[in-house]
Amino acid sequence: MTVLYDRVALIGLGLVAGSMSLAMREKGLAGETVGTARSAETRRIAEEIGLVDRVVGTIAEAVADADLVVLAVPVGAMESVACEIGPHLKPGATVTDVGSVKRDVIQTVGPHLPEGVHFVPGHPLAGTEHSGPRSGFPTLFVNRYHILTPPDGTDPEATARLRQLWEGMGALVEEMDAEHHDLVLAVTSHTPHLIAYTMVGVADDLRRVTDSEVIKYSAAGFRDFTRIAASDPTMWRDVFLSNKDATLEILGRFTEELFALQRAIRMGDGELLFDYFTRTRAIRRGIIEAGQDTEAPDFGRGGVVRKPGDTG
Amino acid sequence: MTVLYDRVALIGLGLVAGSMSLAMREKGLAGETVGTARSAETRRIAEEIGLVDRVVGTIAEAVADADLVVLAVPVGAMESVACEIGPHLKPGATVTDVGSVKRDVIQTVGPHLPEGVHFVPGHPLAGTEHSGPRSGFPTLFVNRYHILTPPDGTDPEATARLRQLWEGMGALVEEMDAEHHDLVLAVTSHTPHLIAYTMVGVADDLRRVTDSEVIKYSAAGFRDFTRIAASDPTMWRDVFLSNKDATLEILGRFTEELFALQRAIRMGDGELLFDYFTRTRAIRRGIIEAGQDTEAPDFGRGGVVRKPGDTG
Repeated sequence: MTVLYDRVALIGLGLVAGSMSLAMREKGLAGETVGTARSAETRRIAEEIGLVDRVVGTIAEAVADADLVVLAVPVGAMESVACEIGPHLKPGATVTDVGSVKRDVIQTVGPHLPEGVHFVPGHPLAGTEHSGPRSGFPTLFVNRYHILTPPDGTDPEATARLRQLWEGMGALVEEMDAEHHDLVLAVTSHTPHLIAYTMVGVADDLRRVTDSEVIKYSAAGFRDFTRIAASDPTMWRDVFLSNKDATLEILGRFTEELFALQRAIRMGDGELLFDYFTRTRAIRRGIIEAGQDTEAPDFGRGGVVRKPGDTG
Repeated sequence: MTVLYDRVALIGLGLVAGSMSLAMREKGLAGETVGTARSAETRRIAEEIGLVDRVVGTIAEAVADADLVVLAVPVGAMESVACEIGPHLKPGATVTDVGSVKRDVIQTVGPHLPEGVHFVPGHPLAGTEHSGPRSGFPTLFVNRYHILTPPDGTDPEATARLRQLWEGMGALVEEMDAEHHDLVLAVTSHTPHLIAYTMVGVADDLRRVTDSEVIKYSAAGFRDFTRIAASDPTMWRDVFLSNKDATLEILGRFTEELFALQRAIRMGDGELLFDYFTRTRAIRRGIIEAGQDTEAPDFGRGGVVRKPGDTG
């Protein structure tokens, strides 16, 4: 493929930035990648494993002369990074981010960027429960959605080039309004994560059931929750704080529904439960047809566990 | 291996019974397997694919002269099946079940079984989100836990032989009190399922986010919920109705915790959120170490989806 940006600066060297660097290198999309991270240890590891072409010690050095700057830090750290890079950005450069929340990032980052710099916010719906500089791999974005949320008035040329970059790394790129993005993600990601964290916390608290029992018998549904609840705590704290409105709205709907089902259990209303469970089954079918999961009953989990269980 | 039971009767020919039949055949654990199901279509398919050695039309025929009778029907149907088999059981036979709830099954099934028949209730923590006679496979129980809950006074010999059968099919067998089983499962399975069903229902109801958006962007955490929520509706209705007390207890704890996190989001209490999310991460580590899941970030999901996302 052709080089889309002569120099790409990655601010933060975690899972997403590392995977971007490896993917851009594999596909020849960037002339040079320069990276930095706040932690010296992260920079040391990145250097050691050759995660980017050049590791530098400061944000100012990283963005100097960069054609694309990627903010790959937790959402709560975006504003201070934006503030720091502002004076050092090259005119005509594009700045993007990979935060899980978009309205808040636009509000906090936007004002710090100078005229003549293009800000095209984005969010890759890709990740694993691992984090840190060693967690990246070049195929992280393949067949995953990447959502761009350019505010009104964004240079279409800058957006188009960034789209090409993500497509070059294998992503399926979509554009939508930042506010809508935040609501969609509150449903498909943020609220499910909060719920999973909660359930895992409840299990851990329960005196009468030991942690070792919870762990041993986790195949029965709980295991998927622990996977979700193992994600990066800083990132998720920031997600909930910065997507407060949409998350609280969806949580409100969730508890309303949960209470209805809880009442049905208490009252012995089997018909309501059966109808509810039948309806939700159809959605699963849609996801498989959309190619976002496989139909294989064990999802190919290998190793010690030959087949997972979610029965009872 | 040696034949443990000359004739095994399977009542119900779904995922679990079908997998048992295939596993027993592969390992030579049963002299003959006889199966029946209420639905003529299920019996026809079982016959067509040779799921058991012999498909019969009635429960009475199935259990006649059987050394082991396996009740593999939804928990809500156990009592009527027990009532029907009672008069036809061979003296000295063992009856077991594979229901997800144990106290209720003991209370409803036990009284219908004649003196001289051994009742050893059990629950395999194995399954997939698929159901029906075509869903079984012989390795379903390999390295999965099977919990036996023999009531006080159960013949140790009968329990030991049943344990041998499950171990022969590859399961890790544990024994515990029925009431404790129901609480442990309420935590590790029943409540997580109810929560997953609820979240999927909320997503489906939401007017401002389309189903197609939910489906497209499901990789971000929601997908695991849909997998759980795709399980058999009849089975799950019966689980909740028959494990009402433990499920309601755990649900109460869950909403209490959820409200605390919701309040932290509303108040902007990032420290509480961060500490909570850090604690839940450790539990995941325990599950991986216990061999009940793999550490691979994508869990080997293959096909179209090269890497799943649970980021933001």
